[in-house]
Amino acid sequence: MADFVFLLKNVLVVSLAMNMGLIWKISYDDDETPTFKWGGLQQKLHIHGYSFNGDKENIVEDEEEEAHVSKRSKLQATTSSRLAPDVWEIQSLVINLDHGDPTMYESFWKQRAEETTVMTSSWQHISYFSDVNNVCWFMEPGLVSAITRLHKVVGNAVTEGRHIVVGTGSSQLYQAALYALSPPNGSSPMNVVSAAPFYSSYPLMTDYLKSGLHKWAGDAYEFNNEEPYIELVTSPNNPDGFTRQEVVKGDKGILIHDLAYYWPQYTPILLPADYDIMLFTVSKSTGHAGSRIGWALVKDREIAKKMTTFIEINTIGVSKDSQIRAAKILQAVSDSCDHENQKEEESFFDYSFKLMAERWKKLREAVNKTELFSLPSFPQETCSFSGRTFGQLPAFAWLKCEGEVDDCESFLRLHNIVTRGGKHFGASMKYVRISMLSRDYEFKLLTERLPAMNK
Amino acid sequence: MADFVFLLKNVLVVSLAMNMGLIWKISYDDDETPTFKWGGLQQKLHIHGYSFNGDKENIVEDEEEEAHVSKRSKLQATTSSRLAPDVWEIQSLVINLDHGDPTMYESFWKQRAEETTVMTSSWQHISYFSDVNNVCWFMEPGLVSAITRLHKVVGNAVTEGRHIVVGTGSSQLYQAALYALSPPNGSSPMNVVSAAPFYSSYPLMTDYLKSGLHKWAGDAYEFNNEEPYIELVTSPNNPDGFTRQEVVKGDKGILIHDLAYYWPQYTPILLPADYDIMLFTVSKSTGHAGSRIGWALVKDREIAKKMTTFIEINTIGVSKDSQIRAAKILQAVSDSCDHENQKEEESFFDYSFKLMAERWKKLREAVNKTELFSLPSFPQETCSFSGRTFGQLPAFAWLKCEGEVDDCESFLRLHNIVTRGGKHFGASMKYVRISMLSRDYEFKLLTERLPAMNK
Repeated sequence: MADFVFLLKNVLVVSLAMNMGLIWKISYDDDETPTFKWGGLQQKLHIHGYSFNGDKENIVEDEEEEAHVSKRSKLQATTSSRLAPDVWEIQSLVINLDHGDPTMYESFWKQRAEETTVMTSSWQHISYFSDVNNVCWFMEPGLVSAITRLHKVVGNAVTEGRHIVVGTGSSQLYQAALYALSPPNGSSPMNVVSAAPFYSSYPLMTDYLKSGLHKWAGDAYEFNNEEPYIELVTSPNNPDGFTRQEVVKGDKGILIHDLAYYWPQYTPILLPADYDIMLFTVSKSTGHAGSRIGWALVKDREIAKKMTTFIEINTIGVSKDSQIRAAKILQAVSDSCDHENQKEEESFFDYSFKLMAERWKKLREAVNKTELFSLPSFPQETCSFSGRTFGQLPAFAWLKCEGEVDDCESFLRLHNIVTRGGKHFGASMKYVRISMLSRDYEFKLLTERLPAMNK
Repeated sequence: MADFVFLLKNVLVVSLAMNMGLIWKISYDDDETPTFKWGGLQQKLHIHGYSFNGDKENIVEDEEEEAHVSKRSKLQATTSSRLAPDVWEIQSLVINLDHGDPTMYESFWKQRAEETTVMTSSWQHISYFSDVNNVCWFMEPGLVSAITRLHKVVGNAVTEGRHIVVGTGSSQLYQAALYALSPPNGSSPMNVVSAAPFYSSYPLMTDYLKSGLHKWAGDAYEFNNEEPYIELVTSPNNPDGFTRQEVVKGDKGILIHDLAYYWPQYTPILLPADYDIMLFTVSKSTGHAGSRIGWALVKDREIAKKMTTFIEINTIGVSKDSQIRAAKILQAVSDSCDHENQKEEESFFDYSFKLMAERWKKLREAVNKTELFSLPSFPQETCSFSGRTFGQLPAFAWLKCEGEVDDCESFLRLHNIVTRGGKHFGASMKYVRISMLSRDYEFKLLTERLPAMNK
């Protein structure tokens, strides 16, 4: 499941605290060219292996910034006199790996731009309704087909006898499931638990409205009373990447399986998952976080109806435009896996697996150069989809600061790396969660900075 | 603000109860050709002034329906022997005017199909982020520009000094505003009121999670205690179309203005609205309900930030695809109003005003032919946008059953018209709300059936 919530504030605080007046803010163009802001000024710099090329034509983008003439002149003078910034400038770049913004797949989709373009005219998809014969009446039939096909191709989830409910990302579906599973007239709110370290947004999403239906009851390992409960099982787990089973095993429990990362670029697929409520999202499967499309596979029709009701009240359905687009993208992924139609092009999961494997190799090499950090180890298993034998390649690195560093998040911030500290996941502050899904140059900066900290 | 919640159940109940075995269910193709279902069978019928043309090629769409052969043969025999169905068949068509599905603008957008088509490739809009420098960091800058321009063109709202927050429809923004305005640690939930008749989804959206932050406190006219409150002011009002001001006028109140219908096809624009929190939606302004895009104009930066936080937790932002599309459509509306660029084409608001005026004329004529019903009257005022002088042309008709009929909703259901009864709006069951935004043939059936009931 996608996440962040802490991000923006952190960036600003860190930037202000650390950079002593030279503040670089990073945004992105469509062509992956970061735009840096220096005080009130903007300058486009093309980064290819840190070869910064000042582009004088683009320095002044906002003509209203007349007050900054002196600063601008100074910057122009600096950048025009050399091709690369000095080491101090690279070190002062804040890289934000707090959230899991899945920009790393962008290159793959650029290669497939032509066949995956969606055209929508203004008269299309006007109605609230998609299919009044479906329990989830706002779900586009084309998306139902695309999801069903992809699960069959990958073999990661049973779809037979399931109702599919579409959501505005899987966050909304998590809340819809809580609504559907909590008794409407219970004497006290339903307990919601997950084994620590758990996804940092679960407590927030459960409690932000102080609901009388459900309440966050913390670490599933510590939940041992006799009350009814809902247990979230995230597998592979966010933040640490391990395969999970339910922990409480009580007879009054209901399970929600968050399978956002149960895809073959992150983990060996062992069996088609066959649980009562399973959550997925395009954010992590194909990298389309901006579309806000998730789906739930739900065994019980009444639960699916109640989840649909939640989304009806919450947002009166889910963007048709994004559903249409997600259907096209999921079909393209299935097409890419269909060897008969493959035209010798790499499948999406081949591409993404190789990228994840390469990144994990580089990260482990970087961490092994220092005694400051450690990473989890995962057992090797054989993936039924790819036939490959490998250990987990999680979307997040669950990094531990060894030795005397007790607050790993603050320690990394001193080196301009923004991560999310262990306390947000119900764990020790010796841990941080680091996104592995960033763009290449951010990941490269990470792997260069980690071993350098030991010096 | 868009709405329905009661719809699907009603259709099925009514269909089953009323049609004695001949159940017509209606769905829509892109070419506005309704598809009728008869039992398990489907048949496409082209309706143009009720000239039904059976299309035998399309009768059997689902090859798995072998069990229905005898019924299918019967239908084929019936439809192939004549061009039009008999009166009994037309009468048994259920028309659903319960919700405000704004399909009536589809024809306009078909005329502008070429210049309003959006193309999106799979590598675009991948990130969660749109603009990290904006309070609402997931809002596309192009949508900010389009909204600002349209309000300036129409003159219906002040945008200067406002923060714009985008939502998954204005329903989400309503909930975001409640979250932002309710004290996080209040001794009791914040009271939420609106003057009856009020939008039927307000109580549901306020209370469905049994929040400890806020609670529905009913009709604003009956709220007179000294506690803090939030008052919803919907103007023009849903369901009855009247212009509204706040009712409670206490010193502990905070106002949310729902201005979903403050557009020149529904009401004379008198002044640019200038309130603290104003909600709008493309569902009702341009008719694009399927895109689920609403926006709030918010004066206070902290409130805008808290609303953004709500949407961050609720759905981690809003579909980029729909934002991009909404921006294109709103720009097209502004372009159509720009007389210099108009190429003698009708502007969107000219088109939609004429359509609404024509429908209200026909509805009033139909109602005047019988003594069974009455409609509200509205004062004439001059619209600062169009220069026209007219009374309100609401998106819903607030119809009253006169005489001895106490349950107007049930009475109309007997004639296969699905509406929403007054009790859902905190009003008498002698009233119903009827959508005026349906497709032409549904509206035509409505205006034919109402006077016929008197016979």
